[in-house]
Amino acid sequence: MSGLEYLKQLQSGDMSAWPMAALFNMKVVEVSEGRAVLSAEPAREHTNGIGIVHGGLAATLLDSALGCAVNSLMPAGRVFTTLEVKVNFTRSIREDAGPLRCEAWVVHAGRRTATAEGRVLDRAGTLCAHATGTWIVFGD
Amino acid sequence: MSGLEYLKQLQSGDMSAWPMAALFNMKVVEVSEGRAVLSAEPAREHTNGIGIVHGGLAATLLDSALGCAVNSLMPAGRVFTTLEVKVNFTRSIREDAGPLRCEAWVVHAGRRTATAEGRVLDRAGTLCAHATGTWIVFGD
Amino acid sequence: MSGLEYLKQLQSGDMSAWPMAALFNMKVVEVSEGRAVLSAEPAREHTNGIGIVHGGLAATLLDSALGCAVNSLMPAGRVFTTLEVKVNFTRSIREDAGPLRCEAWVVHAGRRTATAEGRVLDRAGTLCAHATGTWIVFGD
Amino acid sequence: MSGLEYLKQLQSGDMSAWPMAALFNMKVVEVSEGRAVLSAEPAREHTNGIGIVHGGLAATLLDSALGCAVNSLMPAGRVFTTLEVKVNFTRSIREDAGPLRCEAWVVHAGRRTATAEGRVLDRAGTLCAHATGTWIVFGD
Repeated sequence: MSGLEYLKQLQSGDMSAWPMAALFNMKVVEVSEGRAVLSAEPAREHTNGIGIVHGGLAATLLDSALGCAVNSLMPAGRVFTTLEVKVNFTRSIREDAGPLRCEAWVVHAGRRTATAEGRVLDRAGTLCAHATGTWIVFGD
Repeated sequence: MSGLEYLKQLQSGDMSAWPMAALFNMKVVEVSEGRAVLSAEPAREHTNGIGIVHGGLAATLLDSALGCAVNSLMPAGRVFTTLEVKVNFTRSIREDAGPLRCEAWVVHAGRRTATAEGRVLDRAGTLCAHATGTWIVFGD
Repeated sequence: MSGLEYLKQLQSGDMSAWPMAALFNMKVVEVSEGRAVLSAEPAREHTNGIGIVHGGLAATLLDSALGCAVNSLMPAGRVFTTLEVKVNFTRSIREDAGPLRCEAWVVHAGRRTATAEGRVLDRAGTLCAHATGTWIVFGD
Repeated sequence: MSGLEYLKQLQSGDMSAWPMAALFNMKVVEVSEGRAVLSAEPAREHTNGIGIVHGGLAATLLDSALGCAVNSLMPAGRVFTTLEVKVNFTRSIREDAGPLRCEAWVVHAGRRTATAEGRVLDRAGTLCAHATGTWIVFGD
């Protein structure tokens, strides 16, 4: 199964293979070659000690969405692993700011590596975080 | 209350002000000026679609620990916000790899900004992830 | 003088205030609000020990272009400083690959911070490097 | 020739294979397994438009030193390429601040990837910049 086929299965609703998604109410909203859109719903349980949503939610959402964008270009038999993700936090996320929308796209797709970028927007369309990351690709 | 005083309260067990910590079974293990150690306990609910712990757990743990290290230097009245965190993933984390230990320390503490680094080690002491981040500091 | 006015001066040819630009044959090609395009001309003197252009050239070009994009939004009296820049290298640059074109744009422009992104393309339009960075802004 | 043998040649003074080093007066000061120290001498020609040394010098120095640290672990026949470097700038560098000393060390050395960190200190020992980066490793 190619990455894109796998992602279309996730989008159609079968997220049972991906337990972490449930913790942040994450869903695959759109997916096409080199691009993915995920959503997440922040709640009280995601807040940190100062009453706003922990940066880990945006980091997890971005890590997931960028990885999905990379995965969307993987033929069957190719495997990829995240090497690093760097997240910029541009606006605090309140617990009632959702649903959050995370758009991600591949910037570089090479034989051995890939890079991707993404943005997290709150319900009002305000930029809350953005990220860039690097993947290693191997296999057939 | 200074940042260090606040962190010592968290360490003594009162994490109720920090709901996100419960999701990842995070605890403050040690804290001193410019340094913090946190732990987290991965479980099935933190895994991703390919049976290993989602990178978001290490990212959340590192974001938290680096932020605690920065907070440990804040006098009462100073406020800080995470600008960016960059995480390198060096080894897959299995759901039975915990408890994870995350050590973090401040690299630069200036009047307006701070930077910090940290490492996540699994139960066997193997490096699973490391990070660096930037904070803006303001207030009195 | 606003940042945009300063950059338009640089573009019109007076780079004498910016000695580092000469080392890499850098020029301001275009500048508008929130966006800048710079060029650089690699040469033998920029190569590293294995016969390709040192990553420092792309890093310097990206640091410059992203900074110019941020500067283009600064009114007179506002000052900004680079906090961090993260560069992905996606393709080796040969000494005859130039002129390189670097496009940069602001992603977030807040009251206290800004973030920007950019790309380096070789003469053939191939992506060689891309970057994201963070700035602190202060002053009137 | 192993990476360490190559670096010891550079240290002994034959930097002719590395033209970019001359532009920044870079030298290999120390090298051992997993660790490298480089120096650089800033000058007027490295300054930017506001009278301080361009961030590109520290970025180039860090990129070089981290790469040397990774190289020091490479047996003959192994090849490595920089995937990304992220530089934090913690203090402006004046043109008379040198010589700068850059210490770098490997954090993770795997079969397919490596990561490293480093610091740039001015003549007075003040931290001016620090970095982390990722390398892909391949070959025999």
